[in-house]
Amino acid sequence: MDEQVIKYLNEHQQENLDQLLKFLKIPSVSTDSTYKKDVKDAATFVAGYLKEAGFNQVEIQETKGHPLVYAEWLEASDNAPTVLFYGHYDVQPAEPLHEWKSEPFSPEIRDGRIYARGASDDKGQVFMHLAVFKAYLQTKERLPINVKICIEGEEEIGSANLYERLNEKKDQFQADFAVISDSGMVDNDQPTILYGLKGFTGLEFTIKGPDSDLHSGMYGGAIRNPAMAMAHVLASMKNLEEVVLVNGFYDQVEELTEEERELMAQAPSEDYATTTGASGTVSEKGFTAKEHTMARPTLEINGLYSGYQGEGTKTIIPATATAKLTCRLVPGQEPQEIQDLLIKHIENHLPEGVTAEIKKEPLSAKAYRVDPNHPLMKKAAESFEETFGKEAVYVRMGGSIPVVEWLDSIYHIPVVLLGFGTPEDRLHSPNESFPVDHFEKGMQTIATYWGKVSQ
Amino acid sequence: MDEQVIKYLNEHQQENLDQLLKFLKIPSVSTDSTYKKDVKDAATFVAGYLKEAGFNQVEIQETKGHPLVYAEWLEASDNAPTVLFYGHYDVQPAEPLHEWKSEPFSPEIRDGRIYARGASDDKGQVFMHLAVFKAYLQTKERLPINVKICIEGEEEIGSANLYERLNEKKDQFQADFAVISDSGMVDNDQPTILYGLKGFTGLEFTIKGPDSDLHSGMYGGAIRNPAMAMAHVLASMKNLEEVVLVNGFYDQVEELTEEERELMAQAPSEDYATTTGASGTVSEKGFTAKEHTMARPTLEINGLYSGYQGEGTKTIIPATATAKLTCRLVPGQEPQEIQDLLIKHIENHLPEGVTAEIKKEPLSAKAYRVDPNHPLMKKAAESFEETFGKEAVYVRMGGSIPVVEWLDSIYHIPVVLLGFGTPEDRLHSPNESFPVDHFEKGMQTIATYWGKVSQ
Repeated sequence: MDEQVIKYLNEHQQENLDQLLKFLKIPSVSTDSTYKKDVKDAATFVAGYLKEAGFNQVEIQETKGHPLVYAEWLEASDNAPTVLFYGHYDVQPAEPLHEWKSEPFSPEIRDGRIYARGASDDKGQVFMHLAVFKAYLQTKERLPINVKICIEGEEEIGSANLYERLNEKKDQFQADFAVISDSGMVDNDQPTILYGLKGFTGLEFTIKGPDSDLHSGMYGGAIRNPAMAMAHVLASMKNLEEVVLVNGFYDQVEELTEEERELMAQAPSEDYATTTGASGTVSEKGFTAKEHTMARPTLEINGLYSGYQGEGTKTIIPATATAKLTCRLVPGQEPQEIQDLLIKHIENHLPEGVTAEIKKEPLSAKAYRVDPNHPLMKKAAESFEETFGKEAVYVRMGGSIPVVEWLDSIYHIPVVLLGFGTPEDRLHSPNESFPVDHFEKGMQTIATYWGKVSQ
Repeated sequence: MDEQVIKYLNEHQQENLDQLLKFLKIPSVSTDSTYKKDVKDAATFVAGYLKEAGFNQVEIQETKGHPLVYAEWLEASDNAPTVLFYGHYDVQPAEPLHEWKSEPFSPEIRDGRIYARGASDDKGQVFMHLAVFKAYLQTKERLPINVKICIEGEEEIGSANLYERLNEKKDQFQADFAVISDSGMVDNDQPTILYGLKGFTGLEFTIKGPDSDLHSGMYGGAIRNPAMAMAHVLASMKNLEEVVLVNGFYDQVEELTEEERELMAQAPSEDYATTTGASGTVSEKGFTAKEHTMARPTLEINGLYSGYQGEGTKTIIPATATAKLTCRLVPGQEPQEIQDLLIKHIENHLPEGVTAEIKKEPLSAKAYRVDPNHPLMKKAAESFEETFGKEAVYVRMGGSIPVVEWLDSIYHIPVVLLGFGTPEDRLHSPNESFPVDHFEKGMQTIATYWGKVSQ
């Protein structure tokens, strides 16, 4: 930890907060073309800030969609490692607007939290890194390691152009490891090392019966009801003990080790029923809810529809029934293979009298997992512990961050996820917020981490 | 058959057709309040026609909704029976309008068919009866039997006010038997005696999991997916051999006799797969498709929805899943009892971690069945055969006509269904039509029937 840098950060606390609020005021909603100029303004803000911070090479790279900001500083000592820092400056839409207590793009600090769209996801977390780079460059005219920065504007819409760019410009983006701050802690002030993410694959399928909806009195008893066929196909895919029944689904799964189970047991447990309002929790036989969500694959129905959905009754046999499915995958499982197994299962379980049309979900991701004992992870844990004064816990997460898997599969580098968010941040929802003290402790943790990594 | 009456009908063919077209021009759509005045106009048309025909007592009875037309002529000989003739003058909405080849309320005759909304259901069939009554009264100044007429304006919206009226005014509507022409023949020009209808009951239920949609990565493996729970509950209700698995469902079912099976076998068979476009037919083990649709109870999913239905993928665990179910019932089954069995089944098969909210469908009907050998049925068959020159077939129908069951349960009288529609009539759909020659042969059949019944 460099005293000078920490001192600089402390002295510029208000200035940093002001700059963040300025960043948060830009409504950089990537999914809505109304905000195209604002998205560009956010990229300009990031690039301008980095230039002012002392980065010599800063580019706003155009893409087929929104631009990405690239910057680099590669003047550290010869054997210093190079990090690729990734983040995104685009945000989710703010709707429904009437549910916000203060305007989503007029940040307000209340009860120790910064309320604004993007406060946690991901402008707040990105800005901490920018401010720490600036503190280093302003106090020491150098960074402790070589740094490449990639802040994109399309994370909330799938990062398709980033994927292409990462494949095309391997020389430019190549690094020894990557750091991303776009996640959170399992509990407020609980340092959390996230060392694994799930992959995913999915599909949508429509079971087709008659050409059009039929009179249920005239045809009930002669024609297979596609909604009932759908119920049978879906029920055949997962039993009530939450075990997926698709042949081969678990064949390549890397089993949880005792060591990992112990690590997970140390992490605080969410009381899932209370936080979600469900009447109870259910998990795969032999695994706790925490283990299942973190490290066992899942199959979920995300959407289902057939026939009449209005008020009252319409006595029809629906012409079709459609289901949308996604699986969350764990290390060992190949998304493409699992998708094929799902298709085979549906085809094999389709009853007589109906046909199926299957649409593969084009996006997919492999699971990601880094050794929790990797020195880069241990240093992250130490940096957190020194700042937050509490021992870190190690967790894997049921979610997927596609860029993590891309960095892994294209660049074969470890990705360190330094998450400063909290469970109360309400990402993607009205009243998103981020704690002011995590903003401050976050910068301190990051500054400490760069110091440790350079040694 | 009365030669004088038939002669009158033949001589007034064009006039009758003109009057029908006038009736069809009135857009008496009962479900849409925009047409409130038109619905009233249709009632006025019917009442006016009956007065002109020679009925002394004609009333337009107001209800809480649309009015019903009541008329009576009770001057037949002392031991002559009294018939209650029921029909409806309201029609279904005509939408989608752009699919009509000619305007729905500007009747047009093309290729021997009258095209208009209501041509078959039910204005065309009602008008044949009105014209026959007129022919009797104009030629003989009397009817061969006592007649009560009830033409309502709310059949297409559930006949709720008629149900009340039938219960309140038992003296007024009481008769020895009822005649309804609101159904069809199994094939063009194939006299068809419909001697049974199915009853029905239903419910809608929502399976509830978490308070709101959840991130499938964060919660998949801890929280039961309501859509998957729904699939299991639905699949537990009917197997792939089309056998309903709800405990007690078949307990009260009156089994098909060999005699009935033979009767049904004589009726022409619909090639269900071809007419519906389904890839095959499926029926309960041990029964043909014809037997199952006509005389075995069914359970159908009419609507099903959960989670995300838009384009692409949304990786959620839906908060809820809803299904709409109806059963078609056969003689012996009590709608209320079956509804209770369904509820019990759902409650018993609900997995842990979810709850269910069940809404009973308020409408229900018992099945209706009259002895196909009843003299009133035999006389109907003879009347058809004499006019159409072809032997009648005897069928039951999978559909339900609530008023039939009410007449049965409130008045305990047989209901004779004289159906003149054809399978090509497109009831409730664009381009509804009715064959001109069925209009003529229909009047002849009806005139013949009154003659036979009076003997």
